[in-house]
Amino acid sequence: MPIGKAPQAFPRAEYLRRLAAVKAEMARREVDALVVSSSANITYLTGNLTRMFSIHALVVSAREEEPTLVVRGIDSAGTFHHTFLARESIVAYSDDFVGRPDRNGYDAIADLLIGRGHGTRGVGIELGTLSALAAEKFKARLPQARLVDCSRAVDWVRLVKSDLEIAMMREAAALVDAAILRAAEVIRPGVREADAAAEIVKTQIVGDGTGSAATGVLPLLLCASPRTGVSHILWSEDKFRPGSQINIELSGIRHGYYAAIMRTFVLGTAPDRLRRLHEAEVAGLEAALATVKPGRTPHDVVTAFYTTLEKQGFKKETRCGYPIGIDWVEPTASLQRGDTTELKPNMTFHLMLAIGWTRTSATS
Amino acid sequence: MPIGKAPQAFPRAEYLRRLAAVKAEMARREVDALVVSSSANITYLTGNLTRMFSIHALVVSAREEEPTLVVRGIDSAGTFHHTFLARESIVAYSDDFVGRPDRNGYDAIADLLIGRGHGTRGVGIELGTLSALAAEKFKARLPQARLVDCSRAVDWVRLVKSDLEIAMMREAAALVDAAILRAAEVIRPGVREADAAAEIVKTQIVGDGTGSAATGVLPLLLCASPRTGVSHILWSEDKFRPGSQINIELSGIRHGYYAAIMRTFVLGTAPDRLRRLHEAEVAGLEAALATVKPGRTPHDVVTAFYTTLEKQGFKKETRCGYPIGIDWVEPTASLQRGDTTELKPNMTFHLMLAIGWTRTSATS
Repeated sequence: MPIGKAPQAFPRAEYLRRLAAVKAEMARREVDALVVSSSANITYLTGNLTRMFSIHALVVSAREEEPTLVVRGIDSAGTFHHTFLARESIVAYSDDFVGRPDRNGYDAIADLLIGRGHGTRGVGIELGTLSALAAEKFKARLPQARLVDCSRAVDWVRLVKSDLEIAMMREAAALVDAAILRAAEVIRPGVREADAAAEIVKTQIVGDGTGSAATGVLPLLLCASPRTGVSHILWSEDKFRPGSQINIELSGIRHGYYAAIMRTFVLGTAPDRLRRLHEAEVAGLEAALATVKPGRTPHDVVTAFYTTLEKQGFKKETRCGYPIGIDWVEPTASLQRGDTTELKPNMTFHLMLAIGWTRTSATS
Repeated sequence: MPIGKAPQAFPRAEYLRRLAAVKAEMARREVDALVVSSSANITYLTGNLTRMFSIHALVVSAREEEPTLVVRGIDSAGTFHHTFLARESIVAYSDDFVGRPDRNGYDAIADLLIGRGHGTRGVGIELGTLSALAAEKFKARLPQARLVDCSRAVDWVRLVKSDLEIAMMREAAALVDAAILRAAEVIRPGVREADAAAEIVKTQIVGDGTGSAATGVLPLLLCASPRTGVSHILWSEDKFRPGSQINIELSGIRHGYYAAIMRTFVLGTAPDRLRRLHEAEVAGLEAALATVKPGRTPHDVVTAFYTTLEKQGFKKETRCGYPIGIDWVEPTASLQRGDTTELKPNMTFHLMLAIGWTRTSATS
């Protein structure tokens, strides 16, 4: 049976708008073709959700409306199903390019570039995510082309979301809201961390039952006593204990878009030092939010946060957050001192206010 | 509170055995230091389970028993907690290396190499997974070093498992067995794919309740009618229908080790053509397993499979499988024609027999 199109997350016009922004950036960098290898950037420009474990890339040509996705044959049906791309915009290579010492999927991508006349022109590649061997392959196969590093060119376009993207992120947020409420129910003394995690992960997928289900799931980060000084670890097989502090961080996912949340639970009464930190964090958050305005910068926002926190006797050693969208972290602006990116409406940030702090006041 | 060690997946001697094999490979390639950037290879050599979203690398030195893990400060507690490494074997860099245009975590890694005297010697790097910009950074920062591509050097060491690793993979297999049995219960006409997926994912984490819980979870791949011609996609929000065919592929995870399974369900009576394919696949599998012996090769095994399948009127266009271990796919041997890797005891493979076939017989 021929594979049809899945319900599309966005109309074709939305993808063409994104591609137009990328093509404007390509013109500025004087490249006629851009080889997009970052998975999040490919999802952004096509709607792809197929999980590809083989070499692939999206080739955006200045001269063509639709980009061309080069994939291993096994992924052609899935990428057609989920993307807005026409069937002829997906070029599949055979398993003759898999598991061979002499050639791989990057040869198929180079073949396409040469066949389309890009072998002697400016070609953008993402050297920040492309492997060094893949970059060498492009140099060897396209000796006449002018290869230009376009790392993060598409990522910067992603920074300001459309209203349609914001709506999608709200769907993801509804899922993570349901999951954090479920966490509050299942995190109890005597419950094994893994069992609580399983319930929370299940809720990340189905939400509260009133809306859309998730398109994907990630293992949630869960750091409980005596591991609350740790970041970025998963659940253990220990049981929660009375008085335990539990830090969790998780995300809802809809069509590749993430909405994340980080929260702290205490089983019982929070100790005074934690309560004072909480109050300092809330005061810092309010100071930061009062600074978030078009025209201001991440530097302004975090300065407001750090200054308020320090007045309360705490110091945060790490940055406060980063842009969030497809595949969680976006590698562009950064909520840290010295970042002078101009804040604009429809930028979306994930905040991590509560990790990486030290007490500076002797009284706390 | 200082962070202690988590229950260790393997004894120190097991990590030292693995490191000795890697150091032998380093000697053969004439490098005194190896910069391991592949996440799976770092887990293999240290036991790390912390999910790192910032630049990091493991530096194996021929002259030191323990390797040194360079991480962003925020990940130092987690990596100490999960790995066998001593506290002084984890070197943390500050957020001064994060979100800056002029330097990043690779500078911290280069600083360490220079400080340890590797700036003028042979240094191995993994150019197949390291980004092109990171490789350029190493070239610029270590102009006197002889940089040697050691892509997949550690991966090839991983190919043959120890008995301890096999035991860990059996724990992972118990989780995925429980999940596939749960799938058979919840995949029913009228059930939404996402709801079934949530139950299956929950079971991937907790298993059947008699053993260890999972250390991690991945979204399961689920392709149901009318999408059974698709690979590598997740669940949808459609409901299963009577007569639907459902292909699912999922894994149990224990301490980074995966055990995966791929199965097909039919709701109702399987149509004749599917039944004939099933019989051909089983005959092919038996022919392949009869060929799996020390000293034979992937080429021998898949030739037995393909030949048997073709006799029954089917042809498979794609490879039959690959080695599996940490983080699922291992990028070394490949179950495809032409692969002459010698099969040895304690190698572990994941099979995908049933995808990418076409009927060749006019009678089927």
